Amino acid sequence: MWTSLGAVSEPAGPRAASGRFWAAILGAAAGLFLLGFLIGWFAKPIEKKTSLSTHEDMKTAFMAEMKAENIKQFLHNFTQLPHLAGTKENMHLAQQVQAEWKTFGLDSVQLVHYDVLLSYPDDTKPNYISIIDEHGNEIFNTSLSEPPPPGYEAVRDVVPPYSAFSAQGMPEGELVYVNYGRTEDFFKLERVMGINCTGKIVIARYGKIFRGNKVKNAELAGAMGIILYSDPADYCAPGVDPYPNGWNLPGGGAQRGNVLNLNGAGDPLTPGYPAKEYTYRLDKISCVGLPKIPVHPIGYYDAESLLRKVKMHIHNNNEVRRIYNVIGTIRGTVEPDRYVILGGHRDSWVFGGIDPQSGAAVVHEIVRSFGKLKKEGWRPRRTVIFASWDAEEFGLLGSTEWAEENAKVLQARGVAYINADSSVEGNYTLRVDCTPLMYSLVYSLTKEIPSPDEGFEGKSLYESWYKKNPSREYKEVPRINKLGSGNDFEVFFQRLGIASGRARYSKNWNTEKYSSYPVYHSVYETYEIVEQFYDPTFKNHLTVAQVRGGLVFELANSVVLPFDCRDYASAVSNYAHIIYNLSRNHEDELATYNVSFDALFSAVKNFTEVAASFHERLQQTDINNLLAVRSLNDQLMFLERAFIDPLGLPGRPFYRHVIFAPSSHNKYAGESFPGIYDAMFDIENKADQHEAWEEVKRQISIAAFTVQAAAETLKEVA
Amino acid sequence: MWTSLGAVSEPAGPRAASGRFWAAILGAAAGLFLLGFLIGWFAKPIEKKTSLSTHEDMKTAFMAEMKAENIKQFLHNFTQLPHLAGTKENMHLAQQVQAEWKTFGLDSVQLVHYDVLLSYPDDTKPNYISIIDEHGNEIFNTSLSEPPPPGYEAVRDVVPPYSAFSAQGMPEGELVYVNYGRTEDFFKLERVMGINCTGKIVIARYGKIFRGNKVKNAELAGAMGIILYSDPADYCAPGVDPYPNGWNLPGGGAQRGNVLNLNGAGDPLTPGYPAKEYTYRLDKISCVGLPKIPVHPIGYYDAESLLRKVKMHIHNNNEVRRIYNVIGTIRGTVEPDRYVILGGHRDSWVFGGIDPQSGAAVVHEIVRSFGKLKKEGWRPRRTVIFASWDAEEFGLLGSTEWAEENAKVLQARGVAYINADSSVEGNYTLRVDCTPLMYSLVYSLTKEIPSPDEGFEGKSLYESWYKKNPSREYKEVPRINKLGSGNDFEVFFQRLGIASGRARYSKNWNTEKYSSYPVYHSVYETYEIVEQFYDPTFKNHLTVAQVRGGLVFELANSVVLPFDCRDYASAVSNYAHIIYNLSRNHEDELATYNVSFDALFSAVKNFTEVAASFHERLQQTDINNLLAVRSLNDQLMFLERAFIDPLGLPGRPFYRHVIFAPSSHNKYAGESFPGIYDAMFDIENKADQHEAWEEVKRQISIAAFTVQAAAETLKEVA
Repeated sequence: MWTSLGAVSEPAGPRAASGRFWAAILGAAAGLFLLGFLIGWFAKPIEKKTSLSTHEDMKTAFMAEMKAENIKQFLHNFTQLPHLAGTKENMHLAQQVQAEWKTFGLDSVQLVHYDVLLSYPDDTKPNYISIIDEHGNEIFNTSLSEPPPPGYEAVRDVVPPYSAFSAQGMPEGELVYVNYGRTEDFFKLERVMGINCTGKIVIARYGKIFRGNKVKNAELAGAMGIILYSDPADYCAPGVDPYPNGWNLPGGGAQRGNVLNLNGAGDPLTPGYPAKEYTYRLDKISCVGLPKIPVHPIGYYDAESLLRKVKMHIHNNNEVRRIYNVIGTIRGTVEPDRYVILGGHRDSWVFGGIDPQSGAAVVHEIVRSFGKLKKEGWRPRRTVIFASWDAEEFGLLGSTEWAEENAKVLQARGVAYINADSSVEGNYTLRVDCTPLMYSLVYSLTKEIPSPDEGFEGKSLYESWYKKNPSREYKEVPRINKLGSGNDFEVFFQRLGIASGRARYSKNWNTEKYSSYPVYHSVYETYEIVEQFYDPTFKNHLTVAQVRGGLVFELANSVVLPFDCRDYASAVSNYAHIIYNLSRNHEDELATYNVSFDALFSAVKNFTEVAASFHERLQQTDINNLLAVRSLNDQLMFLERAFIDPLGLPGRPFYRHVIFAPSSHNKYAGESFPGIYDAMFDIENKADQHEAWEEVKRQISIAAFTVQAAAETLKEVA
Repeated sequence: MWTSLGAVSEPAGPRAASGRFWAAILGAAAGLFLLGFLIGWFAKPIEKKTSLSTHEDMKTAFMAEMKAENIKQFLHNFTQLPHLAGTKENMHLAQQVQAEWKTFGLDSVQLVHYDVLLSYPDDTKPNYISIIDEHGNEIFNTSLSEPPPPGYEAVRDVVPPYSAFSAQGMPEGELVYVNYGRTEDFFKLERVMGINCTGKIVIARYGKIFRGNKVKNAELAGAMGIILYSDPADYCAPGVDPYPNGWNLPGGGAQRGNVLNLNGAGDPLTPGYPAKEYTYRLDKISCVGLPKIPVHPIGYYDAESLLRKVKMHIHNNNEVRRIYNVIGTIRGTVEPDRYVILGGHRDSWVFGGIDPQSGAAVVHEIVRSFGKLKKEGWRPRRTVIFASWDAEEFGLLGSTEWAEENAKVLQARGVAYINADSSVEGNYTLRVDCTPLMYSLVYSLTKEIPSPDEGFEGKSLYESWYKKNPSREYKEVPRINKLGSGNDFEVFFQRLGIASGRARYSKNWNTEKYSSYPVYHSVYETYEIVEQFYDPTFKNHLTVAQVRGGLVFELANSVVLPFDCRDYASAVSNYAHIIYNLSRNHEDELATYNVSFDALFSAVKNFTEVAASFHERLQQTDINNLLAVRSLNDQLMFLERAFIDPLGLPGRPFYRHVIFAPSSHNKYAGESFPGIYDAMFDIENKADQHEAWEEVKRQISIAAFTVQAAAETLKEVA
């Protein structure tokens, strides 16, 4: 090819001229040819790749596009009516979101529906609790609804406080106070105080753990009903007025919420499969996660009145209703078959001022900003999927059903999932839960975002965050928490093994001792509580938008995935030491039953070394080598997947991540090495000690295998 | 960039010259620049890609490299000693194979060991069956070993015929003949003849189904022991002499074999996890798949003597022993992170003349030929992995443990698995079992391979194969069978969803009615039986080498994966009609219980349409667009994976393919839509008809979902 084309390139021109002249001409010709060649060589685009500088420029443009004022307006718009899952109002909001995302410029926006089991109070038979006197007369009834907040008196369809999926029933009996209803509370009750809950109605205060765990504990203790109440100690900050004058929970307010123990199953009637028209549904007896006893929430005014003997009147109905996710897409330009997902729920118990609309408004602004860049001709390297989930409040149903329907594609193509529920649960500092793979990305991104905090003008978000909440485990970085559950990332992370993270503005957990935020899941979660108390300038919302949006941007647009596998090695090593140290409370049994953590530590060591080599190799890779980059990115993408055990955790087939799981005692919290942890939990009280310690050994073996297998995925591919 | 460099390119030369001259010079300069640019543009390699013609050339070279004579020598070499799994001899053969594969030029060759549960006769207490007279005296004992074949009289360590993993025991009782011991045989016995097997010893003739299923059926029928015997009707071809004068089974010969029902679990002590040093092992009571009753195989001489009342003497021991796989690799040049695997087992019950060494010798020649090409500077596009599995005879243990250890990597990178057990079980024509994805590849490849058959000189293998065994289901193509199990592809296909296939030379199944081949698993499987009777010129071995090797070559080296998803659509449609037609034996129940196959047919229709569009898109793809090809290839690779249900089939967690499974009644056979099939099997005799038909509906729903989800994976990626 060189030769034949070179022959054609011989210069044509007048023959009679001096040798020197022609030498110059020929030299110039050769020079020109060479120059042309070099320009041709270098000008040829390897691909339509976004150069590093363009990446930074576009990120700057993206970050600058997002505005606090827009988020504020979106929040106002989303909070004017109740948007309970399974209602017309929430379908209408889905349609509105769909229309607006289309206007914003996404490539496609679909409504995706499922028919799932939901639970509502009976319109004709209200739920309440009575106090019974010695003659069996009802001498007091708890309130049937919350006093409405000012300005919302005329709103119809405010669902009264109830415990979704409670069993129906009217049990009557002695009332036993079980504190928070935690495992340790029942242990203390039964083992120390000698109180038996069998045949009793128990009353637990809200807080500390997921309410479904309280209900499960009550059931296991033999209770025939459970009342959940909001105690001022947990739902009122000192020196703060109740809403509307302050942001504390009024005495007539109560916390709605589902009381399922789904363990990641999604729709209780279709565990493992999407709840589509054609899907087989279990009968209501064999379905997953429903409590067997009546459950009801009350406020602290009513709680103060309850005495020894009470009767519950619970008439909630479970019914299959249609729910709607909104799924929007921007197609990636270079790797359209790699997906970065930003998702948050849209359904709310009532107005959803904080939960979820402070998050949904942020998602809306992120979508608008991505759309803006796209309208100007830009596309991300990878495909970005935006999701507005339905029925999160009823057990993460919208996200779980969608992930079940798309599991095969998500397993093969899912790079990361960023969760976007409530943007603010306080206004003190940032709070992040994520996979160790994202630690370094979160740190580098927050160094680029300005802090919204008073006293940190001109400083980065990283700086204020670090100052206010430094890590306990790692030196000189802000704290990042483990992912647990109780939100829509669950199916992506705990079942499918897709790297996930979440971020919001939070309170000072060291000093503010109330649970979550006081008006959580009450009718008092309004636009005004955010606008007047939580974030009047919406600067914290904007910061959260920059964090969530920035994460999505970097994950979708970086040539090399911004995952650092070395941080996973450190985290796993840390968790191995924690679980080992826990085991040392049983030194005698470790010896008796020959329990060793050596294999786990050996696997962790291998993982650490392999991760370091992988990172080294990554640094040396020519980022213009498309397939080499793709291959390394695939190793990074599939690393989180490598921690998935297809056999699942014991008794929890949909929690399959071997390093992390929702705590068996509190769905909200993350537990590390959950298989080993659960095997050792309360082991001293297990009847068959040999069997119990055999299970510990089995779990250590599974953990060691999984860490080793994950290490293997990071080695050179052949 | 264009501008600034363009400025530099201004030609330098004498200023005083005619305008026309300079115009010519400038024109030439511009021309030269353009020419240089174009050459630079086109000369820049997109990658070191193998052009289509090189692919064909290399394939021709590869096919020509393989020689019958080499296969013959390898077979001779591999069959001089017994190579029972777990013995020194088989470890030595592993080391020899490792050394030779290294010499052949592979990039790496590893010995990979596992410590698995195996089973052997007790050296001091032989197994046998006695006839008991009315006084309880043993008046006849079955033989303790087979008469050795000529030339092998001095060989030590020939394991006597036994049923591996049989329970120990000496049951004594009445003998009941159960024909082949199939489900239908026991149904007939119990339901038609009214014979109860409880507390009896049953005797079943070998053949028709996997022996493990016979044992399971006997157990379920309440038998306290089972004798397996080779009947001349099943193990002697008419007009053929027993070995050594012919290839029939001598009367003193018996069939060894394992009698497990592992359902894909691999090592019975470590289901789901690799049997490494650190792995937790179940105790021998809770381990998977072991029969609870004594089992023993005998020949037809002994079988003829058995009378009404017998006593079994079975003393096999289960013990954990080390096994060795040999794993060799040639790194792929363009996509080293995509794996094509050729595997076959190396362990044999005795000499393994046919099973497995006629296959292992072919693998050896394929490895040598790949190595030859590699030494000449070529590499395949993708990585090729060669495996010599251990302990296949004990339940596919070597392959399953390796796949368990490497599951995470295989799921992400496994393109295809080609199985290579016995190359010849007859000499009539080709026999292929494979995923529908490979149909078109198998057909196109066999059209390029010359037929070795008499009367087909100058014709293709495809032609003789088609002539001798045309498909019943599809017009004018040779028959291809469904994959069942009983061989090492099982874990790859049925558990992991990696496209798999197998090929060997076989008998005429229409006319040759004996089971498998007569000397199967007896001491008479020698080198000589192959060399004298089955394939004296080794032309059929060479043909099998060309098929297996050719498949590996095409799968590893084609730019676009040679999978045709439209054939999967046809197959699934065919299976849907088959299962629907089967259901119509129960028209009344279909109506009563509201059972509909509509969702399944709708999903099949969608799959068919999407597959057609995918194929269309594939045709239009620029094969120089590296990432586009990679993306489409990933869709093809992950299609088989899409049929995997992580929840597994009912009661069989390691059989997870929704379209295919080993039959629940015969491990060797493949069943399509096994979940629905098993739910409907013998349904008329189930106690709770409502519950039984609900399960059918649930299985139809799972099948419909899975087919639909597989279709989704073939749609455009975003």
